[in-house]
Amino acid sequence: MIGGGFAGLATVRALKGSGAQIVLIDRRNFHLFQPLLYQVATSGLSPGEIATPLRSILKRRDDVDVMLGEVVGFDVGRRCVRVLPMGQASGSLEVAYDTLVVAAGARHSYFGNDHWRPLAPGLKSVEDALELRRRILSAFEAAEIERDSAARRAWLTFVVVGGGPTGVEMAGQIAEIARDTMRRDFRQMDPKETRVLLVEGAERILLSFDPRLSAKAARSLASLGVTVRTGFLVSDILPGRILVGADDETEAIDARTIVWAAGVAASKLAGALAEATAVAIDRGGRISVQDDLTIEGHPEIFALGDMAVFVDVRSGRPLPGVAPVAMQQGRHAAKAVRARVSGGAPPGEFRYVNKGNLATIGRLRAIGEIGPLRLSGIPAWLAWLGLHITYLIGVQNRLLVLIRWTSSFITRNRGARLITGEVRPAERDADGPNDHVTANR
Amino acid sequence: MIGGGFAGLATVRALKGSGAQIVLIDRRNFHLFQPLLYQVATSGLSPGEIATPLRSILKRRDDVDVMLGEVVGFDVGRRCVRVLPMGQASGSLEVAYDTLVVAAGARHSYFGNDHWRPLAPGLKSVEDALELRRRILSAFEAAEIERDSAARRAWLTFVVVGGGPTGVEMAGQIAEIARDTMRRDFRQMDPKETRVLLVEGAERILLSFDPRLSAKAARSLASLGVTVRTGFLVSDILPGRILVGADDETEAIDARTIVWAAGVAASKLAGALAEATAVAIDRGGRISVQDDLTIEGHPEIFALGDMAVFVDVRSGRPLPGVAPVAMQQGRHAAKAVRARVSGGAPPGEFRYVNKGNLATIGRLRAIGEIGPLRLSGIPAWLAWLGLHITYLIGVQNRLLVLIRWTSSFITRNRGARLITGEVRPAERDADGPNDHVTANR
Repeated sequence: MIGGGFAGLATVRALKGSGAQIVLIDRRNFHLFQPLLYQVATSGLSPGEIATPLRSILKRRDDVDVMLGEVVGFDVGRRCVRVLPMGQASGSLEVAYDTLVVAAGARHSYFGNDHWRPLAPGLKSVEDALELRRRILSAFEAAEIERDSAARRAWLTFVVVGGGPTGVEMAGQIAEIARDTMRRDFRQMDPKETRVLLVEGAERILLSFDPRLSAKAARSLASLGVTVRTGFLVSDILPGRILVGADDETEAIDARTIVWAAGVAASKLAGALAEATAVAIDRGGRISVQDDLTIEGHPEIFALGDMAVFVDVRSGRPLPGVAPVAMQQGRHAAKAVRARVSGGAPPGEFRYVNKGNLATIGRLRAIGEIGPLRLSGIPAWLAWLGLHITYLIGVQNRLLVLIRWTSSFITRNRGARLITGEVRPAERDADGPNDHVTANR
Repeated sequence: MIGGGFAGLATVRALKGSGAQIVLIDRRNFHLFQPLLYQVATSGLSPGEIATPLRSILKRRDDVDVMLGEVVGFDVGRRCVRVLPMGQASGSLEVAYDTLVVAAGARHSYFGNDHWRPLAPGLKSVEDALELRRRILSAFEAAEIERDSAARRAWLTFVVVGGGPTGVEMAGQIAEIARDTMRRDFRQMDPKETRVLLVEGAERILLSFDPRLSAKAARSLASLGVTVRTGFLVSDILPGRILVGADDETEAIDARTIVWAAGVAASKLAGALAEATAVAIDRGGRISVQDDLTIEGHPEIFALGDMAVFVDVRSGRPLPGVAPVAMQQGRHAAKAVRARVSGGAPPGEFRYVNKGNLATIGRLRAIGEIGPLRLSGIPAWLAWLGLHITYLIGVQNRLLVLIRWTSSFITRNRGARLITGEVRPAERDADGPNDHVTANR
């Protein structure tokens, strides 16, 4: 089993008592509850509150051996995986398998513009979230001491690229920080001057939802003060400036903080596995799987979650990269493994049961589709809260998050507003926002 | 006011309603509850749970302006301080003052062996604590995959240098992690093989306590499996190895994780201020203050807390660098500032009221002196718990810490066991523990 995310953990949990000997390989020592990572980036939660050590989750499972390291190669002929143990520069080990389940997840994609990465960090890991938190909080601090009004405006301009759930959540949270959390914190500048822009290439945000709900979410964002620009594509990102365009119009926005929530690509392991098994990957680097989640020609290899592309027979479209898909795939793969261990009949093709879809915008603001039901406002927000608390792992984390949320709700404060990590002065201050004058119209 | 630690915050709080206009300058945007930092290093708490944003603490204090930046110079003649704003490489600002209160704290001292720093990190900042957490947890992971028994033994050997409260707490916590938390986590290695050594140069640990309590603490540590070596000095630290000596005997210990809890030196600002005011600093870099906490010849400049050396008239010894001293000094300085603002009589000389002294070793294990009372075991541990919860800032943090502690107490698990931060494989793996053969006897 490679990967301790939603798919991997669901597989391992569903294999309890199966008799299979499991080696769970992950690069990190914890399972991360990614759907709440944006709250770490926006100071609402601490990383420790949404992460649980894999060893601690699986301590009573003597059939599971957790191994921390990076998978560096597949030898599907000899049925083994090469793993570089965590923290080591060389000396990889071989781990043999009868059945291989790979669920290595996804990372950011800058669509070939990798030089945008340091200028517009994304949100996939704990480190990403802490870096964004540092940038967002530092921007307000820089605005406080900046006397030049144009420069201050650039510090108080936040651009979120990508109008999917993460982008919407980030934009909504940054607006709430400026409006509520920071309201009385500063003496020189007024946080109300903050501008938050959400840039989306498609004609509406939250494409996976019903258009009426998208429109509601856009109105919710607008009421928080977020400017939504749909149909706009990013043409370039420079230090302190982002260029966005629609049709033949290009606009330059002086912004010191840019959040990338636009593109994901499968883990590099998807490509490596595809090469080893000679199957195709799609544009997002995801490996093609058959209807039983195995790789063509390799009934002993499963690929799950964000790194696999599974085309839903009913809609004819690939399943989205969300936690419920990953968990259901994990449980399906576990059934297949049980059948392989016991010699029983395999479970056949995987079918995704879509139980619903929720996205939150801010305090009391959310949208959701549950079966035929369309929710918005407080009911959707409460459904979102309940669901996320339920799916968090561990009683302790649930209590901690509940306290953080209750406290934030009452005081509009955010408990984890720490600027930590390495401060690299050169990173953003080498160039003022106006030093890069480029043809932008 | 320079510094938002215990001394600085106590000063600012005691100046409420004084009419003084306060600028609070700090390098960090939060107040850190340092006495619990060792619990972050040992995975018991998350940084956000023991830190509170300064702006949030002082949001209702319109008389306080928080400024984040580094003090880079004092001009005591013109009565102003030069401050480099946070995140900027150049462009310092001048902040004028009528009264200057400096409480910039302390940092580690390696007694001239600064090359030990990367090999034996100390515990002063959030970043230090996370680095130690990463090293401690990674060492167990490395031991799990190490097949060579000598190398595994080096991964499972932890040396804490310095037998003060921090050293004792760290040693006790690491032993408890190995004994309780990790008990069922590993499949290949046995965490019981863990060795924890506490090395102290003096003839007993916890020198500031009564010798009988020191002895009790040493027995407590021994019962947790910690080997206490008193009268031993560190002669050198190499990658994977530490050399300690007593008299003419030198011992080489192969240990992959070394924690530095031995020496502190005052903030560099103590030296800069001493130079600007032409007063003396002591061996630890601390600036001398008069009996009213001002600098000689400068009744408008106060130096407080860990960066100042204040000789107690009763004992003839300098006051220790602990939070109660800092807080009492802060309140005293505030009284003096009030007198300066209103033209009243100054409060005269500072007198430290020692209300007690507590140190914790582990679960149900602590020692304490409160007035004439000497406590140990469960009563001391409960006193320690109550005191630390009371002095934490913010209802939210108190609740979060209580939940973490209750949960740890019941399950013996530790909720914040994340290996995060940059992983630098070269840092410790370039040299095996046996690659450095030096004359060590």
